[in-house]
Amino acid sequence: MNFEQRLKELKLNIPVLSKPAGVYLPAIKTGNLVFSSGQLPLADNRLTFKGRVGKEVSADNAQRAAKIATLNALAAIKWSIGDLNKIKKIVRLSGYICSAIGWNDQAKVMNSASELLIDVFGEEVGSHSRVSIGVLELPMGSCLELDLIVEIK
Amino acid sequence: MNFEQRLKELKLNIPVLSKPAGVYLPAIKTGNLVFSSGQLPLADNRLTFKGRVGKEVSADNAQRAAKIATLNALAAIKWSIGDLNKIKKIVRLSGYICSAIGWNDQAKVMNSASELLIDVFGEEVGSHSRVSIGVLELPMGSCLELDLIVEIK
Amino acid sequence: MNFEQRLKELKLNIPVLSKPAGVYLPAIKTGNLVFSSGQLPLADNRLTFKGRVGKEVSADNAQRAAKIATLNALAAIKWSIGDLNKIKKIVRLSGYICSAIGWNDQAKVMNSASELLIDVFGEEVGSHSRVSIGVLELPMGSCLELDLIVEIK
Repeated sequence: MNFEQRLKELKLNIPVLSKPAGVYLPAIKTGNLVFSSGQLPLADNRLTFKGRVGKEVSADNAQRAAKIATLNALAAIKWSIGDLNKIKKIVRLSGYICSAIGWNDQAKVMNSASELLIDVFGEEVGSHSRVSIGVLELPMGSCLELDLIVEIK
Repeated sequence: MNFEQRLKELKLNIPVLSKPAGVYLPAIKTGNLVFSSGQLPLADNRLTFKGRVGKEVSADNAQRAAKIATLNALAAIKWSIGDLNKIKKIVRLSGYICSAIGWNDQAKVMNSASELLIDVFGEEVGSHSRVSIGVLELPMGSCLELDLIVEIK
Repeated sequence: MNFEQRLKELKLNIPVLSKPAGVYLPAIKTGNLVFSSGQLPLADNRLTFKGRVGKEVSADNAQRAAKIATLNALAAIKWSIGDLNKIKKIVRLSGYICSAIGWNDQAKVMNSASELLIDVFGEEVGSHSRVSIGVLELPMGSCLELDLIVEIK
């Protein structure tokens, strides 16, 4: 399975890497693991969805944001390793959702990120462990942030 | 030390794995590390303690929830590696407590999870690093979520 | 580059390790990785900055707190490995900022931690991946918490 080709089939583009929001790198390789930095749903360095999910941002739009941030995480990992075909396993997806009080569908929002990973990498490589939490605020007022840990060949 | 036997001595049961709250796996193995997904205090697929600690949920009940979620995390790891005796080291316990405003005893709640790990695995294997934070909301309205990273033989 | 000497040049002291806030260890080594526990801006076992950033705590003071917590994280890692010169790579910095509602400068606060790491370890070793989120509450009422994952030689 060629993941770069699979992205094309799904008409998904690995975006141009947005400028990190601070003095850190998009991703770091250590041994066979690559840690992406926390990714916002940025497109062309602009936030696509801002505000609290369950209040200013609908669950549908939060799912769109999760897909954008996931592609940004893949862009960050590609920046580090050059070729997404080097990925052996998606290890961990962590999602931080800026939530309205009493809104508890964090898992539903993160499912769209999980599904995208399985679409691109297939069940065997793409299935991952996950943590989803609802946070009070995020950098730039983003509605969500997520990061990936992947194992490479 | 036989950890499966030690669980029996402590009259602790590794529960039947609850259905993940989304499209992800209970745990993932990468090299010698196993990452559990975020675990809620579920029993028979139902949340045992729901709401904000320091408000709807007492610190005592949150400690009960932390023990249940820790056993769920061990169930997730056992699902991945087959036998808890393969565990060489508990590496990291991360706890996310749905907190009332002004309530700051997150560490006290997570202590009950840490103590359970040390009871089962002993000081040498069970002593771990830890992160505890107070979050705004959690999936399904849970009072807490936690995840484990363990090293295996 | 001698990191212990570099700390002296920068007039930075690795503090005496504060007592952990619970039954866990300051840091854990697994293979070539060391995970620090979550660190508060403690000095002599007392919190230096307490409260919500953007409300009771200014961004400037939160940056001071981030530097103190970063040195505490290095103290925790040194406790585990004995000598900071064994560090090969700063892998991951995670920051949890107790935020006022509507305050979104988490990245700015964490930049002071990132800059300290790059000052001490240089661009090649010190540049890292990062996650920054705004949380509701933290242990002891701290204004921030952070943890490090480092790769050792």
